[in-house]
Amino acid sequence: MINNCISLPPKALVANWETLTRTFIRPESEEAKETLIKYMEQILFGLQEFLREHVGITEEKSLKELAELFSDASLPLVPEKMLAEVITDLVQDIAPHAVNVASPYFVGHMTAAIPFFMVHLKTITAALNQNVVKLETSKVVSILEKQLLAKIHRLVYQQSKGFYDTHVQNTETALGCFTEDGTIANITALWVARNRLFGPKPGFEGIEKEGVVAAYKAYDIDRSVVLVSCLAHYSLQKAGGILGIGNKNVVAIDVDSNYRLDMDHLRRTLGSLRSEGRTKIVAIVGLAGATETGTIDPLREIADICLEQDIHFHADGAWGGPTLLSGKYKHLLDGIQYADSVTIDGHKQFYMPMGCGMVYFKEPTALDAIAYHSRYINRPGSVDLGIKSLSGSREANSLILDSALKIMGTNGYGLLIEHSIQVAREFAEEIQSRPDFELTSPQVLNILTYRFFPKALKQRLKKEDDKGKKRLYEGLNDINITIQRNQREAGNSFVSRTTLKGTEDWPEDRVVLRVVIMNPMTDIDILREILDEQENIYRQEKRK
Amino acid sequence: MINNCISLPPKALVANWETLTRTFIRPESEEAKETLIKYMEQILFGLQEFLREHVGITEEKSLKELAELFSDASLPLVPEKMLAEVITDLVQDIAPHAVNVASPYFVGHMTAAIPFFMVHLKTITAALNQNVVKLETSKVVSILEKQLLAKIHRLVYQQSKGFYDTHVQNTETALGCFTEDGTIANITALWVARNRLFGPKPGFEGIEKEGVVAAYKAYDIDRSVVLVSCLAHYSLQKAGGILGIGNKNVVAIDVDSNYRLDMDHLRRTLGSLRSEGRTKIVAIVGLAGATETGTIDPLREIADICLEQDIHFHADGAWGGPTLLSGKYKHLLDGIQYADSVTIDGHKQFYMPMGCGMVYFKEPTALDAIAYHSRYINRPGSVDLGIKSLSGSREANSLILDSALKIMGTNGYGLLIEHSIQVAREFAEEIQSRPDFELTSPQVLNILTYRFFPKALKQRLKKEDDKGKKRLYEGLNDINITIQRNQREAGNSFVSRTTLKGTEDWPEDRVVLRVVIMNPMTDIDILREILDEQENIYRQEKRK
Repeated sequence: MINNCISLPPKALVANWETLTRTFIRPESEEAKETLIKYMEQILFGLQEFLREHVGITEEKSLKELAELFSDASLPLVPEKMLAEVITDLVQDIAPHAVNVASPYFVGHMTAAIPFFMVHLKTITAALNQNVVKLETSKVVSILEKQLLAKIHRLVYQQSKGFYDTHVQNTETALGCFTEDGTIANITALWVARNRLFGPKPGFEGIEKEGVVAAYKAYDIDRSVVLVSCLAHYSLQKAGGILGIGNKNVVAIDVDSNYRLDMDHLRRTLGSLRSEGRTKIVAIVGLAGATETGTIDPLREIADICLEQDIHFHADGAWGGPTLLSGKYKHLLDGIQYADSVTIDGHKQFYMPMGCGMVYFKEPTALDAIAYHSRYINRPGSVDLGIKSLSGSREANSLILDSALKIMGTNGYGLLIEHSIQVAREFAEEIQSRPDFELTSPQVLNILTYRFFPKALKQRLKKEDDKGKKRLYEGLNDINITIQRNQREAGNSFVSRTTLKGTEDWPEDRVVLRVVIMNPMTDIDILREILDEQENIYRQEKRK
Repeated sequence: MINNCISLPPKALVANWETLTRTFIRPESEEAKETLIKYMEQILFGLQEFLREHVGITEEKSLKELAELFSDASLPLVPEKMLAEVITDLVQDIAPHAVNVASPYFVGHMTAAIPFFMVHLKTITAALNQNVVKLETSKVVSILEKQLLAKIHRLVYQQSKGFYDTHVQNTETALGCFTEDGTIANITALWVARNRLFGPKPGFEGIEKEGVVAAYKAYDIDRSVVLVSCLAHYSLQKAGGILGIGNKNVVAIDVDSNYRLDMDHLRRTLGSLRSEGRTKIVAIVGLAGATETGTIDPLREIADICLEQDIHFHADGAWGGPTLLSGKYKHLLDGIQYADSVTIDGHKQFYMPMGCGMVYFKEPTALDAIAYHSRYINRPGSVDLGIKSLSGSREANSLILDSALKIMGTNGYGLLIEHSIQVAREFAEEIQSRPDFELTSPQVLNILTYRFFPKALKQRLKKEDDKGKKRLYEGLNDINITIQRNQREAGNSFVSRTTLKGTEDWPEDRVVLRVVIMNPMTDIDILREILDEQENIYRQEKRK
């Protein structure tokens, strides 16, 4: 799609040194600048309208058709398009087939609308292009990042003023680090836990240096495990795999009927591992907002066990962490302040753009366990933040979060959290009031699961024998798969789906619909419309 | 710093639901919008001037003073500032103490000026806020990403058209993945190599599932190693640590006098590992542009050995990979097409903003070795890109690189590479022509090391005995540390420094100055000024 304000035909686009340095520095022409200004103004000052108007507006092309359109693997030798054209293409040809995650009807995932100012902050961060791997390419930004890490650490751990005065700008200690996302935050936490459990001792230089085999020999064991809820995010399994302990040693503990970690099962598992005698526990993970259900593990009870048995306690608050910003609901996370490490995502309930994870450590020296130095940067004792993180080069996401906190205040974020939990509560009531639906996990935060379960089937269920029940359950799963898929394909709204494993109360695996309420523009009326649409889809399907 | 166009005093900033939803959606006032427009226009259409005017313009505050300014760890309860104020603060208070990495005088690191249009592309990517972990939050953007991965794969591997037709949009295969940076790209490559080496076999479910201890037992060995040049990036050591093989098993191979991997030493090491018999080789790594010297390992010879001995060959082209875009210099990377995996950074010589790494695999099924699924997304057989990557949620950096390639063409990128290598060549000549300097590693790409070595000391060296020589070498190192530090602190220009380990030709460790030439605005006159300044610093220091 060629914008008609661009006068040069494509064949005139050559890559010579003169045009190149010009391209590097400023728009090719005044007309091009006008096009760019138009779009940038729309994006920066009318973000929600821009997205509503341009993004995800068409489902007319199937995945197969799109795949065919994007199947040429040749690189353009000469410049193909000018910037204004490329931006025009992005807006007119790409965006309509992207997903309007900002729509208040898009309630299926943890990616949603961001405040318009986040785009301004991202723009300025990209323009400054600081690299916080080292002081020499970031200076004050590294210092600001250390301060922000202390601020969020304080939100979680509430240590004394003296503690933060000592550590906020201490080049020897680190209260946490920024990561690309929650997966890498969780991996970092367990990496630290592994290395601290198998630290150096006489005749052994530590697991990081000598590896897992030498570590087990030095500590005279056969196996190490991580204990997690069966609802844990799959990144925890991945952590077990990459860290070399084996992902089958990330042991799933049952949940109770409220989808919280079953403490009895945890205690029994610990007991049997202990009596068997040749296994060490790398960490117990508590979920502060399960990805699928939003339920919260009994953090304080897990903390007690970990303290008693000297086990690393990791809290995965990727989703739920910012609940601490709400005076009304922070009590739900009680116990998180005892965790040795905590994951919190910026691009989730801090409403930042992709991708920003964080991990915090109670002990300011915990990250020493993964420190790396090099000859040309990250020398010992420097402020270089890259010494203690999984990644090296990183953008300065701290600039965005620090600014957002100034603009919103913790109260502002708190209101967003409270609003979404309130809407989730109303939605849970709505589901329970409709005869053809069933709430499948309790509403705790702002994530809900439920399923379509026609009244007639509920009644029939009572009369069926085991075989008949099984068939009915399978049919129910198929109905929910169809409803979710058809609704997504219709393109007006989106909920996700997952499968809840059987519990004692409900032994069958259940395909359920999943709703994540974080967009402040999503209200109960919109959610009612979504349920109405699901009812309609069912009726239409039945007629087929 | 309060911008005077904002009429509301800070006490009026309250976080209530009405102001909050407004804040979420649009600027607080027309006056605020004017301030924002002013800065955004400067950033988007006068980036280089904006940076020159605002960034890194003052060194007046020491690190210690800055640390004191950023030492309050309390979070603002109520909104502290409005967006326009926050942006004004960023520009007026933060940016002056950041580092102007875009200055043509800032030639010490791999972070430099980016074309202005990159900021536009980042802005639109942030606005769309797609999450490429899964199709449901990205749709066409995931499809575009697969296409771009095929394009860059083709740049590296030059497979047949049929190969790309088969794989470009194949949901079962993956030609590579985007990562946060080169470190995570390198770790991903070695993670794949480890898992393929210790794959499942009868009675063993594979290292990812069972862990390192079970793997060594199943394969009846005691140790596995990665062989790398002693100039390898520190991320390779980190990979050994996190992957559980132990970072001391990332074995450093000597370099020859040209700072290329010493093939004799590599062969001897392989021979002795083989005769010892209880060790497996996870990978041999070849550097396609060493971080410190820009030198390139003999990739084709490494490839031959790896092919012959069935060893995973990883090429670290984080820096040098894009040299393939230059018709004139791509031959320098000959052999990279045989690598099983290749790291290339986007935020280096693709001139993208922080942070974008990539890793490519010759075999389209290689990434299967690290695949993870979950119940709610990333189901087997889906297009979801998060199935085969270390991280989960990711921003759509592919939109930026794909667009940039359309704007620049491979020719455009090629010209940037060729210009920087040409300037590096002129700079090497300049260094060699000055009696008080010494080139310490050969110019191959656009990274150079050299040191200040006064003519008088060169002459004195000839007369000294071993003890005297040692003292002289130490003095020389001190001189270069001082020159680099004083120049950085003066704030007009910046080179980095590193320590080159002794080689056969030059057995002493040498502190050297390091220059990375990638900014197209850096020319030989600027580099001459930098040398002049270094000479002046030496003279001033001598006078003290």
